[in-house]
Amino acid sequence: MTTTKADKKAQAKAEYNAFLAVCPSRQLLDRISNKWVVLILCALGGDDASEQSGASHGPQAMRYSELARLLAGVSQKMLTQTLRALERDGVLSRTVTPTVPVTVTYELTDLGLSLHHLTRGLRQWAQTHMDQVLASRESHDARPR
Amino acid sequence: MTTTKADKKAQAKAEYNAFLAVCPSRQLLDRISNKWVVLILCALGGDDASEQSGASHGPQAMRYSELARLLAGVSQKMLTQTLRALERDGVLSRTVTPTVPVTVTYELTDLGLSLHHLTRGLRQWAQTHMDQVLASRESHDARPR
Repeated sequence: MTTTKADKKAQAKAEYNAFLAVCPSRQLLDRISNKWVVLILCALGGDDASEQSGASHGPQAMRYSELARLLAGVSQKMLTQTLRALERDGVLSRTVTPTVPVTVTYELTDLGLSLHHLTRGLRQWAQTHMDQVLASRESHDARPR
Repeated sequence: MTTTKADKKAQAKAEYNAFLAVCPSRQLLDRISNKWVVLILCALGGDDASEQSGASHGPQAMRYSELARLLAGVSQKMLTQTLRALERDGVLSRTVTPTVPVTVTYELTDLGLSLHHLTRGLRQWAQTHMDQVLASRESHDARPR
């Protein structure tokens, strides 16, 4: 039986399963299931950074310093590591412009844009359902054991 | 100026912003951006656990032991803690049936079902784009510094 390249690709794709500990897709799921990844993608995807959720200005290139300011509380080490990993994974691209000092900007790739739809949904879900979750916690904690 | 209860609610909702370190929605985003949360929701949402991604059998109640088996590699401590947190947040419900020994089952609430649409997308994204990410890593690592 001959197997074409396309067959092999389809076969390989069907085999990824994040439920399995050893599957590479488990590690990829672990990487993207991270609040800093979610917020970086929301930022580069142009989601409104003000209190009004939902609005989007469309994808935008951003400097490191802009990202650091928008992602309140992120350490320099964490932001640098996360951006490097996302660049290696092909989710974002890094552009160095030889100004003095050099300007480094980050931008979502097409792959990153496809992931942004999901991370945007996660941020919106958290903001939209916060009241419901707070009410659930309150009633859970008040319940007799 | 008088403020109605509905006004206050709308105002409160509009104020949640996960970009802010002190916003409760940041902590909620952190909680849901977690591979075990994603996989628990996929399992209870009935997503196909076999290698074929995409298919879903619909939401289902599952026992602790079934979840532990499906989520390969999860420690008992991590699974227990994650399930407790999700129950407290109102994402899933826990039912104890007085059999001998007692049967404990977990099921998604309506809130959990609304989150499942997103977590399902994350797992599928990881499985569908794995080849593309692997190719990107390879070309990134081969690039001269």
